[in-house]
Amino acid sequence: MIAVDWGTSSFRAYRLDAAGRILERRASAAGILAVGEGGFASALEAELSGWNDAGPILMSGMIGSRQGWREVPYVACPAGIAELARGLLPVEWGDGRRAWIVPGLVCRDDASVPEIMRGEETQIIGALAALPEGGDAILCLPGTHSKWATVRGGRILSFTTAMTGEAFAVLRRHSILGRLMPDEMDESDGWFEAGLRRAGEGGGLLHHLFGVRSRGLFGEVPEAGLAPYLSGILIGHEIAALAPPSGVVHLIGAIRLVALYERALRVGGRVSRVLDPDAVAGGLFRLEAARTAG
Amino acid sequence: MIAVDWGTSSFRAYRLDAAGRILERRASAAGILAVGEGGFASALEAELSGWNDAGPILMSGMIGSRQGWREVPYVACPAGIAELARGLLPVEWGDGRRAWIVPGLVCRDDASVPEIMRGEETQIIGALAALPEGGDAILCLPGTHSKWATVRGGRILSFTTAMTGEAFAVLRRHSILGRLMPDEMDESDGWFEAGLRRAGEGGGLLHHLFGVRSRGLFGEVPEAGLAPYLSGILIGHEIAALAPPSGVVHLIGAIRLVALYERALRVGGRVSRVLDPDAVAGGLFRLEAARTAG
Repeated sequence: MIAVDWGTSSFRAYRLDAAGRILERRASAAGILAVGEGGFASALEAELSGWNDAGPILMSGMIGSRQGWREVPYVACPAGIAELARGLLPVEWGDGRRAWIVPGLVCRDDASVPEIMRGEETQIIGALAALPEGGDAILCLPGTHSKWATVRGGRILSFTTAMTGEAFAVLRRHSILGRLMPDEMDESDGWFEAGLRRAGEGGGLLHHLFGVRSRGLFGEVPEAGLAPYLSGILIGHEIAALAPPSGVVHLIGAIRLVALYERALRVGGRVSRVLDPDAVAGGLFRLEAARTAG
Repeated sequence: MIAVDWGTSSFRAYRLDAAGRILERRASAAGILAVGEGGFASALEAELSGWNDAGPILMSGMIGSRQGWREVPYVACPAGIAELARGLLPVEWGDGRRAWIVPGLVCRDDASVPEIMRGEETQIIGALAALPEGGDAILCLPGTHSKWATVRGGRILSFTTAMTGEAFAVLRRHSILGRLMPDEMDESDGWFEAGLRRAGEGGGLLHHLFGVRSRGLFGEVPEAGLAPYLSGILIGHEIAALAPPSGVVHLIGAIRLVALYERALRVGGRVSRVLDPDAVAGGLFRLEAARTAG
């Protein structure tokens, strides 16, 4: 089969064998915003060229959103493989070509504000086999919109989102905080940890953000340290607000970002475990198995 | 005399009589970024044209920063009229023309991170006469970088900054949160208050930001309500982190923004008092009096 993770700004595809092992992988910048309405079929054909006869195609991510190929309704939590497989919707093109899109998930936080995800649910499904016996776990999927999910008995019980990655990006690119920051980012110098500690001090996030400016102006944080310091402040605030007080945090995501969250959780005295960043391929494999079985 | 409040993106000038009363006022968009190095003398001449023989010129704000006309060293807190007047530095141009620039203030927060202001110290000096007997008060100056200052015995003891206004602007203009927001902003519909209440719920600011997106997508907050809702979340977080638990908060700033802070403080059960938004003119008048006396 072919497993596709089609997000806002990136496209990833995996060719899998009958046991779900990755035979080949591809990635490009052809995210849904770069492709746009009406162009998805030809974009998919181009991205998968040469992978003919590779079997069914399953896709997850923002390709199932209103801005994607076909809007696939959110499935309500708690949800596991069965609920997600039932929500798969097909898209068709050309001479009988077809692919399936995985639905996203919706739940409500304690104050009944909606939470939504598209793509992360499939990564979590792919990671289930690596979770502790019984399938109870806390997962964190860092990113533009970080997700913290609670898994119970192999199903996604609930999840919470923090706009950490996007806040970092817009503050760095568009606020006064970015003025002194060099383009390259190197988190090896301890300033990321300084930001994490800062997040634990009083005054709140909006106050801590200003300190990035003032410490930069006073030369207390070198220019190369300002972006890691800001990153540490934001990730520190996210973890302080959303990490459970105890228990292992299972991390899925891009290697470099996951490594930062590992460091952040360690500074906070928490234990983390890094799961396969290609979990999405395994998730799509399991959903395809459920689809054909069901 | 002529009192000038010269900031990053705006220029305001007041012609005052010998008792400090405002005779005439001017405002333009000729902030220091729009003018730039080498252009300050001619910009000032142009802005003040016709106000010849109006007496000495005092200026406060970012005009005294590294990007301004002349960098005037920060004065350390606690500081009052005497310390600020001693820190005044002149700029000279043309045929013996001269103006004085007010220094900014610096202090340290509880974690020893530097706090800086340029311009607000002069507004606070101008507001001293309106403060309770003895000159002890909490002041809040909302804006791009909101300031919370503690005044004791008529001197500025310490202050704290929150990047609230700038965070609002960059999130609205450059993040996904702005996508559904109309250009015009109307805070009359209760969504600002909904944002304030949201700030009091669990999950932290980065989580609450994402809820602006999800509630917008689900139609739970109408498009016209999204910017006020975001504004309420940010101001609510600022106040929760920085407002003292009790006591009157004295507000100085633009009328519309100060009205939002009044509403926010009221929702939080706090009492506020709005001071003269032209306090900067009175501050420059008092500093000029101290300069000529000293």
